[in-house]
Amino acid sequence: MKATLSDKVIKRLTLYHFILTECINHGLEYISSPKISELLNIDNSQVRKDVKLLDNQGKCKVGYSVRELKESIEKKLGFKQKKDAFIMGAGNLGTALLKYDDFKDYGLNILAMFDNDPLKTGMIINEKEVFHVSKFPELVKKMNVEIGILTVPSKYAQDCADFMVKSGIKYIWNFAPRVLKAPKSVKVWNENLIGNFLQFIVNEDVRNEEK
Amino acid sequence: MKATLSDKVIKRLTLYHFILTECINHGLEYISSPKISELLNIDNSQVRKDVKLLDNQGKCKVGYSVRELKESIEKKLGFKQKKDAFIMGAGNLGTALLKYDDFKDYGLNILAMFDNDPLKTGMIINEKEVFHVSKFPELVKKMNVEIGILTVPSKYAQDCADFMVKSGIKYIWNFAPRVLKAPKSVKVWNENLIGNFLQFIVNEDVRNEEK
Repeated sequence: MKATLSDKVIKRLTLYHFILTECINHGLEYISSPKISELLNIDNSQVRKDVKLLDNQGKCKVGYSVRELKESIEKKLGFKQKKDAFIMGAGNLGTALLKYDDFKDYGLNILAMFDNDPLKTGMIINEKEVFHVSKFPELVKKMNVEIGILTVPSKYAQDCADFMVKSGIKYIWNFAPRVLKAPKSVKVWNENLIGNFLQFIVNEDVRNEEK
Repeated sequence: MKATLSDKVIKRLTLYHFILTECINHGLEYISSPKISELLNIDNSQVRKDVKLLDNQGKCKVGYSVRELKESIEKKLGFKQKKDAFIMGAGNLGTALLKYDDFKDYGLNILAMFDNDPLKTGMIINEKEVFHVSKFPELVKKMNVEIGILTVPSKYAQDCADFMVKSGIKYIWNFAPRVLKAPKSVKVWNENLIGNFLQFIVNEDVRNEEK
């Protein structure tokens, strides 16, 4: 039976995945739960509990099979399902995301970027083309793209989101710091870089005061 | 009494903050909890519960005072505490973050960026200088900077983190997809862009299957 996972579980599973990738790079075949918990400074029981959420069979006396545990996390988090995406907004953040090749390891395949600035149109960045926004609806349909990554300035975000929805986009990954209106059939994920980081600092300060 | 907040509460409070900022830009003085819940497609009771976590006094018959609610969120999440930071790694992501002026609204003040590439050293980006890494320890002390934003490629991340710790950095905001070792006195926040987004998509698909 499938079930949704909490943000904290997702976060930990992704960190385990980072560790397992490192292990493979260093030729290690097995890793124990105490080793993982030590690296992340969390409880061993937490690691065991998280692993129980996966359909992982690769456990023996010396620990988990690195490769099998890695694969079971990838399956659970959908890392291996290929997902095509377009970026809307060829600014600094859009360009950084377009150049970020690590996304491919997670199945996220960014095909192209769009902007309304004619100076940017036609540029090739990281082997991907920057198209004029007017090409967006046609290419969404032609390439069957469901994911739109929105990296335009805040004040244009709603108009761009409306345009993406009208063009057939089903999932919007929104980097603009504002709430977007969208029909229920379209899912919006609001990225919240600064909020999480600042609260991390605030929470750490609270913990220090308590000591 | 202060208490740590869950990631989900932080996320919602930041979204309320986005909405309240929009209200101020449009000259609106009051907003009701049903209006907020409608915009975010969540339960009204959830909004009321979250607001109870704040020391917010600005409630009347027509709803919350936009300005007071905004300020109480800023206080709770530490948006108004000024925090100086340096970026390590003048690649695309580092440059995007350096140019991202919205951080200032949350008190995060990025002062400079560092890289070991002599071609980048001396460049001015968004009125901020790119220094050679060798200047890092001296400037951390001189400018009393506690936050280091790590945007170097994964394979250099641990060495750079060690160097930042040795230089006196107390909080590392890590964008490299790997787990960093650091002494307990240094807090590491692992940014996890792709993990959260992909899981959002996977969870949405699970929800759709259940329908």
